Amino acid sequence: MQFDVTILGSNAAIPAYNRHPTSQVLNYNGNLFLIDCGEGTQFRMNEFGIKRGNLNNIFISHLHGDHYFGLVALLTSFNLNRREHPLFIYGPLGLEEIVQVHFKHSLTKLSYKIHFMPVFIDEPKVIYEDHALTVETIILTHRLPTTGFLFKEKKNLRKIIADKITEHNIPHHKINDIKRGGDFITETGNEISNTGLTLDPASPRSYAYCSDTVYIESFIEQIKGVSTIYHEATFIHEHEGRATETFHTTTKQAATVALLANAGKLLIGHFSARYEDLNLLLNESKEVFPNTLLAEEGKTFAIGND
Amino acid sequence: MQFDVTILGSNAAIPAYNRHPTSQVLNYNGNLFLIDCGEGTQFRMNEFGIKRGNLNNIFISHLHGDHYFGLVALLTSFNLNRREHPLFIYGPLGLEEIVQVHFKHSLTKLSYKIHFMPVFIDEPKVIYEDHALTVETIILTHRLPTTGFLFKEKKNLRKIIADKITEHNIPHHKINDIKRGGDFITETGNEISNTGLTLDPASPRSYAYCSDTVYIESFIEQIKGVSTIYHEATFIHEHEGRATETFHTTTKQAATVALLANAGKLLIGHFSARYEDLNLLLNESKEVFPNTLLAEEGKTFAIGND
Repeated sequence: MQFDVTILGSNAAIPAYNRHPTSQVLNYNGNLFLIDCGEGTQFRMNEFGIKRGNLNNIFISHLHGDHYFGLVALLTSFNLNRREHPLFIYGPLGLEEIVQVHFKHSLTKLSYKIHFMPVFIDEPKVIYEDHALTVETIILTHRLPTTGFLFKEKKNLRKIIADKITEHNIPHHKINDIKRGGDFITETGNEISNTGLTLDPASPRSYAYCSDTVYIESFIEQIKGVSTIYHEATFIHEHEGRATETFHTTTKQAATVALLANAGKLLIGHFSARYEDLNLLLNESKEVFPNTLLAEEGKTFAIGND
Repeated sequence: MQFDVTILGSNAAIPAYNRHPTSQVLNYNGNLFLIDCGEGTQFRMNEFGIKRGNLNNIFISHLHGDHYFGLVALLTSFNLNRREHPLFIYGPLGLEEIVQVHFKHSLTKLSYKIHFMPVFIDEPKVIYEDHALTVETIILTHRLPTTGFLFKEKKNLRKIIADKITEHNIPHHKINDIKRGGDFITETGNEISNTGLTLDPASPRSYAYCSDTVYIESFIEQIKGVSTIYHEATFIHEHEGRATETFHTTTKQAATVALLANAGKLLIGHFSARYEDLNLLLNESKEVFPNTLLAEEGKTFAIGND
């Protein structure tokens, strides 16, 4: 089952070196989830061939412009293309007012319905669920109310051993029971225990998106064992003072979060415009957490075991 | 005196073929005027090396997003770069509410002052004036209240003939009087008439920006003899019905406006996403008005006689 994230932008607030503000697309088996939507997100989607028809859920972490200034333009393009299916937007309460004031002055009547789902920062909550995934908020600490998002695959079904189906002549309608952990009684009345028929499933995969935030450890328990974490790393560690002052994180702090959370892989991003060469940030992070990668535009990262 | 316009974007509402929404920068002797500000305008400014420090006046034609969605992001970047000098924004009344609602939710306190100058569509008015230029509104007809903008150079001073300065021993402090049309009395009391000292100045140059609008002739008298006109040409002439329905213009209609206005040069733009090859539009326009050029991104066009 495909589960990956494509980076559309990963610069901090001031665009620089042809790096653009924050946006990512998570793809779960063809179902797309947009996380943040900085200016020009729709241009990057065109550039990287992202199919917008499969995008039904947008998550906005907070109301600094570099995380949402591309949203109204994207919503407008959906309208110009006569989108009909509804769209869900999860984000701070003020987002609806911002979007509506634009549509009010342009006399826009949308061809589709937007459901605004306000997100609060009192405690982590499941804000989305379907047959395969849940999305929980991660409470971050920034200059504005900010949440990250934890995408968690549901527990997978057990893997049935193909040979056992013929060996015990298991009928098709019993397969799902067995995948869910059930035993099987053969035509001759023998009970075959589930452990003799199936293998452990792959561990559910998960993706934690943590931007923007000062260094905090309060959400580490929540994301323990996460397959892939994206954590902002706006500054090199030498600029820790500036990071704290602006409620951002350094490379080494981001890497420490990944280490404490026992993450499989760390993507760093939200790079300050002051750094042209990102290897400086990458190398610092790797000193603390070796499996660090740069969340560079256009790159796609598998979530989970690879 | 430099007087030119650089195209930052000239596509219609849906970005396509790496063409972006409308924005232009007019440069008058280093003083920059931004006309419309579609999404990503600040990226294009970076790409084409536009110096933002010299930009103090922004003109927004109307409140369809493809003409202003990049504005709040640009204003935010000015703030992040600690701009101090004031900025004047000329546009529809609703623009201030749109900008302020963003800043309210991001708790932004700007480092500089924005003066919102509401523009109305009752009649053409001078909305800007400095020592060298005036800007008048052009009343257009679109689905929302829309104005174009006519940038007019003030009457130039007469050109003094260099040889006459030495011939008559004209002192430096008399030069400006003579340039303004004054005669000169020599040390020996001879009166030299101005026509013997100067040449006619170059005609004042002008730039008319007309987007978006259905085909109308009501402003032609106002722009008669304009050096360069930018007129939207969203559609080829075959799609005239669609143009009228959406209050836009075809190539041949835009060219007819340029012809009737006796313009020096026509730039066409605001191309519909349905056309990949813009030569189709260019050739149609040239049939009616030969001196037509495509307002393509990154191109700079001199205003006036070249």
